[in-house]
Amino acid sequence: MTISTDHATVQRVSIQLAERSYDIQIAPGLLDQATAWQGLPKAGAALIVTNETVAPLYLARLQQSLKTHYPVVHVCSLPDGESHKTWESLNRIFDVLLAQACDRKTVLFALGGGVVGDITGFAAACYMRGVPFVQVPTTLLAQVDSSVGGKTAINHPLGKNMVGAFYQPERVVCDLSTLQTLPARELSAGLAEVIKYGPIADMVFLDWIEKHLGDLLARDPQALAYAVKRSCEIKAWVVGQDERESGIRAILNFGHTFGHAIEAGLGFGVWLHGEAVGCGMVMASRLSQQLGLVDAAFTERLTSLIAQAGLPVTGPDLGADVYLHHMRVDKKAEAGDIRFVLIDPPGKATVRGAPDALVAEVVQACCRA
Amino acid sequence: MTISTDHATVQRVSIQLAERSYDIQIAPGLLDQATAWQGLPKAGAALIVTNETVAPLYLARLQQSLKTHYPVVHVCSLPDGESHKTWESLNRIFDVLLAQACDRKTVLFALGGGVVGDITGFAAACYMRGVPFVQVPTTLLAQVDSSVGGKTAINHPLGKNMVGAFYQPERVVCDLSTLQTLPARELSAGLAEVIKYGPIADMVFLDWIEKHLGDLLARDPQALAYAVKRSCEIKAWVVGQDERESGIRAILNFGHTFGHAIEAGLGFGVWLHGEAVGCGMVMASRLSQQLGLVDAAFTERLTSLIAQAGLPVTGPDLGADVYLHHMRVDKKAEAGDIRFVLIDPPGKATVRGAPDALVAEVVQACCRA
Repeated sequence: MTISTDHATVQRVSIQLAERSYDIQIAPGLLDQATAWQGLPKAGAALIVTNETVAPLYLARLQQSLKTHYPVVHVCSLPDGESHKTWESLNRIFDVLLAQACDRKTVLFALGGGVVGDITGFAAACYMRGVPFVQVPTTLLAQVDSSVGGKTAINHPLGKNMVGAFYQPERVVCDLSTLQTLPARELSAGLAEVIKYGPIADMVFLDWIEKHLGDLLARDPQALAYAVKRSCEIKAWVVGQDERESGIRAILNFGHTFGHAIEAGLGFGVWLHGEAVGCGMVMASRLSQQLGLVDAAFTERLTSLIAQAGLPVTGPDLGADVYLHHMRVDKKAEAGDIRFVLIDPPGKATVRGAPDALVAEVVQACCRA
Repeated sequence: MTISTDHATVQRVSIQLAERSYDIQIAPGLLDQATAWQGLPKAGAALIVTNETVAPLYLARLQQSLKTHYPVVHVCSLPDGESHKTWESLNRIFDVLLAQACDRKTVLFALGGGVVGDITGFAAACYMRGVPFVQVPTTLLAQVDSSVGGKTAINHPLGKNMVGAFYQPERVVCDLSTLQTLPARELSAGLAEVIKYGPIADMVFLDWIEKHLGDLLARDPQALAYAVKRSCEIKAWVVGQDERESGIRAILNFGHTFGHAIEAGLGFGVWLHGEAVGCGMVMASRLSQQLGLVDAAFTERLTSLIAQAGLPVTGPDLGADVYLHHMRVDKKAEAGDIRFVLIDPPGKATVRGAPDALVAEVVQACCRA
């Protein structure tokens, strides 16, 4: 499917972070648009980092576009999947950069989903203590969440995203056309992060998502364009206030504490991150409800939307102890106290603790027997 | 040797970097001084990173001091030496942090020389995307140079310090008493970085070094105190203007471009970093002279001082091509053009290129036949 585009249709969202500010460009067909790549830092070379799944689809087009801006465009293609978000993959990027004698002006381009974006961003943060990079997210999850805001990381055998940096890209280029080739399961996973923005920040957006869920699942270009833009606007608003997550930024982790336990408990990669977040939001809403912060109707409404988006709403039955164990090593935890992102009231999030017994009760109620 | 001390003798140098500002404390006996450890970020745990050589000398004292401020003080002791400034060592720190369920308030303490400081700082920069850390340098080189200014890194098989971050410590605590146990060769290596500050920034300091070199080599506490303080002041002045080395900070690399070629050409660890810098300054001065920026008398004066400090002034005869090859992968190089830090005039440094033929001539003149 090809969607024609012109400059007028490019939406822009700004991330305001003083000298680290940058724009998100959102439109179909941006991979081939000259404007998407103009005005980036000049360099003797660029390096595209991608993976084996995305490369056959989009690498040649990005290379073609970048060749008019950089004398040399190197490529590093990594294996696909969360299990490869490791030091080994990171080091392959350094190997290419050093083997090609890339200097500290070299610009890195992350072409792919969240894993490619996180690794590439961290490589850019570390190579020669920092080189510029550009996010070119090709999944819905990466376009609405992981490519925006400068969180980069790799996994450690003892914990997900435990080694990383806050490091902002020069630009985020969201080519909406790439979403047309996304597997259905990954589209749903991305919708989990879109839905997230409603309860934590904007109930009008939640209304819109409910009304347009069918369009989104059918990949209607206009619906996708609005969902990506509004998600990025909310994320920009949060990140602009708290780049390094010392406060409000934690609300973006709604559903992620429970979700993290699901991912870690099952083994990373069994559920997609977005699937775990979807189910985690059901649990976090129910915990909010048990604490009297939202009513049962809200939990039911959110659960129904998540289910209709094609996401799981019942957790794997790992036992409450396993959930609690994994949540204690969450990065938000402090001295072993789990910090939950809860809804209070709908449209606003808060970060607080909860009694273990109550959390266990919620987990049991939300898990398959 | 024990040196008595009291609060009045603690010298302080401030690094002014807005919200990342911090103090360097300089005095004998600081390891046991309560004031050295007061006012640091509170946390449920601290982690001391050190090495097998330094641990038997100073670990117990630092542990004892920190126990009054942190409920738990973990330790990670690494093998000693530049050859261990690797991902493997870095990952051992992450292993300990995660095995001990350390949260993102955990404070890391780097107890040792430049290698320990660089690895620990980089671990702090990356663990959970950044935790606070404190430099406790125990070598002269680390006290006057590597612990100050926030450059952290590990080596990659294809290049030294190629993977790292600009990440500032909360404080630098220079216990001058630790210099009394330093091997003579490492004292001389540290003096190379002390001498460096003269030609690039302060010829009055160079006069002082010449006059007090005997005292410094005899480890006179007053002489060491002044050398460390004045070196830190100059470094603070430079770093305060250019934290991320986009300009003037590069002058701190005087002697380091040639020195890097010596280290890489011989294999890292054959010469100490300070030894390579000492000889590299002779070469860089001679290159400055060939370009008409300083006179022969200056080169002779600097060469004589470096030799008297116990440092090599004649380079290993690797051949000019090998020198040029290694200098092209220096981080200051741009698109293969080597950038030299040159003296112009004495007391002031400049960064510029030079013709390969002239560089080759200088290398040949400065190397053992």
